[in-house]
Amino acid sequence: MSEFRKDPILERWVIVATNRSQRPGAFIESQPFDPTLPCPFCRGHEDETPQEVLALRDGKSASDWRVRVVPNKFPCLNLPSTSSEQQAGEEGPLRPSGITYERIDGFGAHEVIVESPRHVFSTSDLTLEELTDVFRAYKMRLARWQADGRMAYGQIFKNAGQAAGASLEHAHSQLLVTPMVPIGIANELAGAQEYYRQRDRCVFCDMICAEIGEGSRLVVETAHHIAFAPFAARLPFETWVLPKRHASHYEQIEETSLGDLAGILRELICRLEAAAGRCAYNYILHTAPLGTSAAAHYHWHIEIVPNLARTAGFELATGYYINPIAPEVAAERMRNVPESRTAE
Amino acid sequence: MSEFRKDPILERWVIVATNRSQRPGAFIESQPFDPTLPCPFCRGHEDETPQEVLALRDGKSASDWRVRVVPNKFPCLNLPSTSSEQQAGEEGPLRPSGITYERIDGFGAHEVIVESPRHVFSTSDLTLEELTDVFRAYKMRLARWQADGRMAYGQIFKNAGQAAGASLEHAHSQLLVTPMVPIGIANELAGAQEYYRQRDRCVFCDMICAEIGEGSRLVVETAHHIAFAPFAARLPFETWVLPKRHASHYEQIEETSLGDLAGILRELICRLEAAAGRCAYNYILHTAPLGTSAAAHYHWHIEIVPNLARTAGFELATGYYINPIAPEVAAERMRNVPESRTAE
Repeated sequence: MSEFRKDPILERWVIVATNRSQRPGAFIESQPFDPTLPCPFCRGHEDETPQEVLALRDGKSASDWRVRVVPNKFPCLNLPSTSSEQQAGEEGPLRPSGITYERIDGFGAHEVIVESPRHVFSTSDLTLEELTDVFRAYKMRLARWQADGRMAYGQIFKNAGQAAGASLEHAHSQLLVTPMVPIGIANELAGAQEYYRQRDRCVFCDMICAEIGEGSRLVVETAHHIAFAPFAARLPFETWVLPKRHASHYEQIEETSLGDLAGILRELICRLEAAAGRCAYNYILHTAPLGTSAAAHYHWHIEIVPNLARTAGFELATGYYINPIAPEVAAERMRNVPESRTAE
Repeated sequence: MSEFRKDPILERWVIVATNRSQRPGAFIESQPFDPTLPCPFCRGHEDETPQEVLALRDGKSASDWRVRVVPNKFPCLNLPSTSSEQQAGEEGPLRPSGITYERIDGFGAHEVIVESPRHVFSTSDLTLEELTDVFRAYKMRLARWQADGRMAYGQIFKNAGQAAGASLEHAHSQLLVTPMVPIGIANELAGAQEYYRQRDRCVFCDMICAEIGEGSRLVVETAHHIAFAPFAARLPFETWVLPKRHASHYEQIEETSLGDLAGILRELICRLEAAAGRCAYNYILHTAPLGTSAAAHYHWHIEIVPNLARTAGFELATGYYINPIAPEVAAERMRNVPESRTAE
C-alpha cells in the first residue's frame, strides 16, 4: 500500500508509491554532453564569459583563479543600466472587464559561480579545497547583495547534468537575486513561523533531533552538519544538509565551518552517485531573505534533489509529488556505500 | 529587458526572459519510444491491462470498444480491499523533540483512459469522435467518484511523450482520485475566491472578456469555448481552454458541448505542433472538488503545458518559472498556422 506523507512545514503531500519503481521508463538515464563543444568555463577561456564580479585567486594573472563568479551570459534578470529607482508595480492597462494584470521589470541579477578551473562535472569531482571556496563564494556574494540593500532574496542553486537543467557540463552553480521573496521560500518561512508560534521551537531543529534519535533516514553526520532524507521526500534520493547549530542566514556561516560543510556535501554526493549512479541533480540553498535579522523560527539548509524520476502532469497540476522510493530505503542505500567509494 | 509577471490567481510570478531562448540546449528535443515494445493499450490486447471499469463501445465483443478506462497497473493510490472506513490521520510516533510526522494510507484510485484502440500518440492523431468520447469518459468517471462520496478530488491529466512523463506511447490520459484537495488546486480555489470577494466577479470570466477584447494572446475560439495563452504563462506555448459560459464543475458539461470541446482542443494541439514541432506536453483538467456545489468564483478549464523548456533548480526552489518565450509571441505563432495544418 502506498502512503501520503505531509511535509511538516508546507501543505505539501507526497505519495510514496514504491510499486511505481517497477514501471517501464520509471527512471531517467543521464544524457552525456557533447564532448566536442568548447567550454567557456575552463582555465584560459576567461575572455569568453562576461567580466568577473568575484574571483578567489592565488596569483595575479587573469587565469590564476580557483573559483570565479561572472554575470550569466543569458541573464533572466538585470540591474537597470542607470541607478534609477526600482520600477516596481507597473501595471498593464485596465481591461473592459476590469481585470488588471501585474508586471514588473525583470530587475535583479543572475550570476554564475564557476566551481573549478578544471573541466569537471559533479560536486564529487571537486577537491575539498575547491568546494570550500565555492561555499566561500556563496557567502561573499550573498553578503554583497545583502549590503546592496535593494534586493529581497538571493537564490543559490546548482543544476548538474542536462536532465537537471544545466546547459554547460563544467561544474558551476548560479545565484539569482530577486526583488521579491519567491513564493516557495515565502511558504516555507510562513510554515516554519507557524510551527514556532505553536511550539516555541524551530521545526528544523526538531527535525534534526528526531532524525538523529530515530536514525532510519540519516545519511551522514559531521562536526557541524547533518544530512538526512526528509520524511516527505518528493523524489528518489532527495536529501537535506543542515547546520546542527541553529542559524537562519547562510551568509553568516563562520569561516571555520566552510570546510566541514564542503566535506559533508561532497561525501553526500559521492554516496548518492555510488548508490544511484552518476545522475543529474539539483541542489538548492534555502536561506532567510536579504535584509532580515536573525530568525529563531528559520534554519538555513541545502536541499539536494536528484533527477531520477520524471515529474509529470500530476505534479504540475496538484503541487503534490509521487515518490517511487521511500526515503528510509534511499537513506539506507546511501549509508551502506563502502567507505572506499565515499571520497572518490 | 525581461519582466516579472504575476498570475492573477496565485502568488506565482513568472520571469519572461526571451534572451534565454538563445542558450545552448534551451529547448528539449522529443525522444521517440522504442517501436519494438509491445503495446498493452492496442485493440486485441485487452487482457494485458487490469479489468476495465468503463468502456464506450459499439458492439458487444471484448475488443469492440472506442474508449476504455482501466485501473492503472502501477497505481499510486488504491481503495482498501475491505469497505472499511478511510484510515486518515494516522500519525508517526512522537519523537523526543516532539515533532510529529503526518502520514495517511495511500487511499484513492488511479485510472487510465485509453483514448483510442489505434496505436496513436498525440491528441492531434485522434478523430473528433474519439476525442469527444474521451471527454465523455472524463465526465462519466468524475460523476462516478462524485457519487462515491468518499473522495475529495478527481485529477484528470494527460502525459504525452516521454519528456512529459508518459511511460507508454499509446494515447492515454489518467485520473487520480485523492482523499484531500491537492494544494495546487486549493491555492487556485482560494485565489479565485479572494478575487470574487473583492470584485463580485469570476476571475476566469474576467480573463475571458479581457483576452477576447485584447486579442494578442488569443489562439482559437469556438461556439462554446475559448483558448488563449495566459498572461503569466509558465512555459513556452502554455495555453488554457475554458468554457465561455461560467461553470465550476466539469462533470456537469452538457452532452452537446463535448464535441465543441474536443474540436477546440484538437485544433489547439494541431496548432501547437505546427508552430513548435511535435513536442511532449501535459494537459490538466482543473475543476471544482468532488462533493461541492456550483461555485460562482470558480471556472473549470484545461491547462496545456508543452515540455519545451527545461525546469531546473530555480523553479524547484522558488515556485517561480522562467519562460523564454512571451505568451503573445507564442499565441501569434499558433494563430498564424495555415488552415491546412490545423486539422491534420
